[in-house]
Amino acid sequence: MAERPARTVRELGEFPLIDRISRGIAYRTGGVVAGIGDDTAALRVTPGNLLLATCDVQVERVHFLVETTTPELLGRKALAVNLSDVAAMAGIPRYALVSLGLPPETPVSFVDGLYAGLRAEAEEFGTDVVGGNVSGSPPEIFVDITLLGEVEPDRVLYRRGARIGDRLVVTGHPGDSAGGLALLLDPTIPCPPEVAEPLKLAHRLPIPRVAAGRAVGATGLAHAMIDLSDGLAGDLGHVAEASGVGAVLWADRIPLSPELRELARILGRDPLEFALHGGEDYELLVAVVPGGEGRVIEAVERQGGVSAAVVGEIVPAERGLSVVHPDGHVTTLRPVGYRHF
Amino acid sequence: MAERPARTVRELGEFPLIDRISRGIAYRTGGVVAGIGDDTAALRVTPGNLLLATCDVQVERVHFLVETTTPELLGRKALAVNLSDVAAMAGIPRYALVSLGLPPETPVSFVDGLYAGLRAEAEEFGTDVVGGNVSGSPPEIFVDITLLGEVEPDRVLYRRGARIGDRLVVTGHPGDSAGGLALLLDPTIPCPPEVAEPLKLAHRLPIPRVAAGRAVGATGLAHAMIDLSDGLAGDLGHVAEASGVGAVLWADRIPLSPELRELARILGRDPLEFALHGGEDYELLVAVVPGGEGRVIEAVERQGGVSAAVVGEIVPAERGLSVVHPDGHVTTLRPVGYRHF
Repeated sequence: MAERPARTVRELGEFPLIDRISRGIAYRTGGVVAGIGDDTAALRVTPGNLLLATCDVQVERVHFLVETTTPELLGRKALAVNLSDVAAMAGIPRYALVSLGLPPETPVSFVDGLYAGLRAEAEEFGTDVVGGNVSGSPPEIFVDITLLGEVEPDRVLYRRGARIGDRLVVTGHPGDSAGGLALLLDPTIPCPPEVAEPLKLAHRLPIPRVAAGRAVGATGLAHAMIDLSDGLAGDLGHVAEASGVGAVLWADRIPLSPELRELARILGRDPLEFALHGGEDYELLVAVVPGGEGRVIEAVERQGGVSAAVVGEIVPAERGLSVVHPDGHVTTLRPVGYRHF
Repeated sequence: MAERPARTVRELGEFPLIDRISRGIAYRTGGVVAGIGDDTAALRVTPGNLLLATCDVQVERVHFLVETTTPELLGRKALAVNLSDVAAMAGIPRYALVSLGLPPETPVSFVDGLYAGLRAEAEEFGTDVVGGNVSGSPPEIFVDITLLGEVEPDRVLYRRGARIGDRLVVTGHPGDSAGGLALLLDPTIPCPPEVAEPLKLAHRLPIPRVAAGRAVGATGLAHAMIDLSDGLAGDLGHVAEASGVGAVLWADRIPLSPELRELARILGRDPLEFALHGGEDYELLVAVVPGGEGRVIEAVERQGGVSAAVVGEIVPAERGLSVVHPDGHVTTLRPVGYRHF
């Protein structure tokens, strides 16, 4: 009589679970000397390059609800948010370590789906999952990923470095993710699917701008870069603080998507609020030497496969952060994004 | 009127918390180009060396109870278990990333204590905390650490590589940690403090055998190495499986501490069970070329500052794993350690 396959991670057990996870892993990037299965991964880094290291976690009920995502999308997003941090340094993502916290009753199918998503995202961005950890975790799931990358020392970009007069360039359509989150949290919002679905996808499956980040770095025209995880206001605040400068955003230049504008109309809200204070867009915000913005936008659009636009400029610190509205009036920009506590 | 200082991480807020954590961090190791405060850390690795990367998490109620540890000890241990994984590859620990999951009501003093412990442990082992992440986490605390290290390609040791005839060498006193855990979980055990305290400390503050691991690697006499996190039986099982061999342990050679023997006597249990199936010892288990064991033990004791002993040998795979008892009878060794699910 065939044994019934294990349905939960408790039934399967820790080491069979690790075997199951490891089976699907093939190393593609050529730098993995020892991967999953040893105490630590042993890896090659291109001599002369800087090593990049970042970590970001997805916690059930804090970052995701099992009701509003799928294990595959969760796996993709957990890696995507880290890819975005490497992209923001103009780096090449290389190696990922995945630390899973799983309540014992987690279905094995959930882990299978999560890893299918992780592998798909890793493959798309030329990254290998080289290690990690599996732990019990009552009662919420967490997926904590550390991503290692590398970057040429003459191409790396930081949050600091923005200079007065720099043009601010942003990729994609900030605010879409926050619009999607609003729709996911309140399914009763009367929004047609052709508006709702792209917004929800922007939240559930953000596209890390790795190629765009590389393209920006290669131009040599950028002074600072960050990815938009806390909203345009919050992340611009980080750049301004780290660089010791102020900044102005031009409201009518911020590239809001037609879908976000329509959702905002339905909700009776200002679409700009989603872009400024929403978060989780994972677009790039770049401070570009004045006059270089055209070449940076062209490089991003050609090599990065995403649109880009000038949305403001860097000003002296004493002017703080502000927004110039289409009618010319100026408001102070509160550098406030999502609060974890 | 002075404002009352924030008592919980919710009152303090995410970014002030990150500032607070970052303030105490000084980079000592010279390889940190960009640390905490950017999207990713930018780091130097010695050209020609392999990069090592490992992660391990401490989850409240799974790995620790706030009732039985202190924030400082938790911080030290969370890093120590990762240092141990780098030690097991004969590596040099370099950079740590710390991903914290904190329920909003976590006292700020808890985070301060945790970071004091992390910093103390990092300093002791020449490691820099270069980045991380802070997230909400209802309702349990987790401390997930990724540790990066490096190792000369001709010194690295893996789980695989053990050969028939190799002598098995173990550092320190396996089983003490499990004994300490038994005492922490049942304070009614009638055990005098001079016996109980060293055992509890072995559990709450394991010493990663970094110097010992380096010493082993430098001898060139070891074929395989692992750290004891799952108990001697479980981790020997990992080495045997990865190397395609079997192994024999000689029960009377396993260096049980006097304190563990006394605790076992009080409990009416076999002290060997704590060493074989207890886990969390973070001692090293090394497969050494026959005849090399004396030199390896000498190197470990001199440079590693810890005792070491021969406890068995590698045998053909078909003999499996077994224990030879003092009276000569042989039992099968179940490679079973702590189960997470």
